[in-house]
Amino acid sequence: MSLEKSVEFIRKQKNFLIASHTSMEGDALGSEMAFYRLVKKLGKDATVLNDDVIPYGYDFLPGLSVIRRFKKGIKNIKFDCFVALDCSDLRRTGEVYTVNSDGLPILNIDHHISNSRFADVNWVDPRASCCCEMIYRLYKKLNVPVDRDVALYLYIGILTDTGSFRYSNTTSETHRVAAELLQHGIAVPEVYKNVYGNIPYPDLRVLSEILPRMKVEQKGRLAWFAINREVFAKKKKLSFDLSESLLTFARTLKDVEAVLVFKENLGLHKDVRVNFRSQGKIDVNRIANFFGGGGHKTASGATIKGSLETVKKKVLKKVREALR
Amino acid sequence: MSLEKSVEFIRKQKNFLIASHTSMEGDALGSEMAFYRLVKKLGKDATVLNDDVIPYGYDFLPGLSVIRRFKKGIKNIKFDCFVALDCSDLRRTGEVYTVNSDGLPILNIDHHISNSRFADVNWVDPRASCCCEMIYRLYKKLNVPVDRDVALYLYIGILTDTGSFRYSNTTSETHRVAAELLQHGIAVPEVYKNVYGNIPYPDLRVLSEILPRMKVEQKGRLAWFAINREVFAKKKKLSFDLSESLLTFARTLKDVEAVLVFKENLGLHKDVRVNFRSQGKIDVNRIANFFGGGGHKTASGATIKGSLETVKKKVLKKVREALR
Repeated sequence: MSLEKSVEFIRKQKNFLIASHTSMEGDALGSEMAFYRLVKKLGKDATVLNDDVIPYGYDFLPGLSVIRRFKKGIKNIKFDCFVALDCSDLRRTGEVYTVNSDGLPILNIDHHISNSRFADVNWVDPRASCCCEMIYRLYKKLNVPVDRDVALYLYIGILTDTGSFRYSNTTSETHRVAAELLQHGIAVPEVYKNVYGNIPYPDLRVLSEILPRMKVEQKGRLAWFAINREVFAKKKKLSFDLSESLLTFARTLKDVEAVLVFKENLGLHKDVRVNFRSQGKIDVNRIANFFGGGGHKTASGATIKGSLETVKKKVLKKVREALR
Repeated sequence: MSLEKSVEFIRKQKNFLIASHTSMEGDALGSEMAFYRLVKKLGKDATVLNDDVIPYGYDFLPGLSVIRRFKKGIKNIKFDCFVALDCSDLRRTGEVYTVNSDGLPILNIDHHISNSRFADVNWVDPRASCCCEMIYRLYKKLNVPVDRDVALYLYIGILTDTGSFRYSNTTSETHRVAAELLQHGIAVPEVYKNVYGNIPYPDLRVLSEILPRMKVEQKGRLAWFAINREVFAKKKKLSFDLSESLLTFARTLKDVEAVLVFKENLGLHKDVRVNFRSQGKIDVNRIANFFGGGGHKTASGATIKGSLETVKKKVLKKVREALR
């Protein structure tokens, strides 16, 4: 079992370089912090190094000041090993993996089925709801008590990666772990407010103005949004994932089978990011593949050259065919 | 302990009249069905009687055909007892309680703190997330195995009453129960899709057209929606609770402390339904009380005579004062 090998790895090493993926979210951040505290509690040294900022809404988490930014560099620290958390591939760490130019032993803890098994010890469990659920098992196996901060880190990972316990990765085990974590005095509505109820008014306006533009066709089986670059001319960065929010909204539609978001990219060259979601009947991975993208059967994406109008036309044609 | 007394009550009786509240939702329906199956499995007779329709989106639940409508009447059945589930008061059953004109013994199982203890056996537990969490304990205590259907009934009650495990009533115990229920083969995303992702397109359009009308004032601390009766002129009944959806949307706003929805009622006399939510700092129960309504400190409502404009003016004045 790779859990045992991970435990062995952790016991052997003394100074850990810990990283997760860029475009960080709750599970990446929670895993890093919980793993950092784990090895500290075992009397070891550790550094968390990220090639991206702390995502919006997560600054309420305690102890984040231990996280260092890659850009600022790491000097005079001699690491024994490198730990990649929630990364299906080393490149998901951004540039952080280049710090390990000496080829130190790598521990890879991840729940993505697509994980490329890049490390010396690979613990990949696609049945785990998230990486935090796996870190929880490390605490149990190493007999390290979970305290209130650690419970919060792990809970955040589970909450966000399961979409508040409603995605298909939510299992009985997920709830069992959440049950134990809540015993450490987590204020559920406060956490929820911080993570999901923290949108500045101008950002929420952008969302509410785009929602009425949803197009529905194929007798309600297909719904899509097209966002032109003007939306982002004034506001380049929103505090939430706009495409994700639009996809979630469209998926509340009765009988819908496929949901798409077209987002015209800023930048010099004309291209469009397309995100696809399927309720299971059609394979949106195949459609994304056709346009040079990829993903899963029910969630995929592709960046396609061309104007918004051209890309929309081409992609919608393919989706309509698939729905036939 | 009232759990023990409820068990005693159930063991003694042979033919149960089971009811829950009007304006049914997941917990009312789930409790009724799970209680019905419980007593049937104990070899007893039972009838579920409702003074309201099955709420929209719940027809995917198995076995609902045993539920009878009050309007159609109950004839030639001699009940031994009356069971009220998730009802803070007998009148919450609509007219169903009038069936018990002979004054049969009543069992009252509820989780509302405001419960009026109207029955012969009152089991009221405000720490339970929902009535279904209490029915689950009855299964354990009576040693009746939970099967797949029952697990689904109970899970639906928990899911909906906790807002997918994010309201303050979500406890460690709630997750522990969910963990056991999921072991009976519940397809989490399917359930979620049925309950929350089942909105007909015209209804979703109504919502998306109202969202951009949100007003924000007091430096983002107050947000409100005003819905005039014209919105409902074409579409009298939506498949979801519009006020609830608007309140939820407004509560995603950063720094918001109070959220209100004004809804002009149809009907002959001019009046407006006002729903209040507070993030905890101000007491919206007091404000609702002032206008003849009521509720809790963080969630309340009032129906106020007058035009939409007049009511808005009066109520917003009070809320602004409270926010000072």
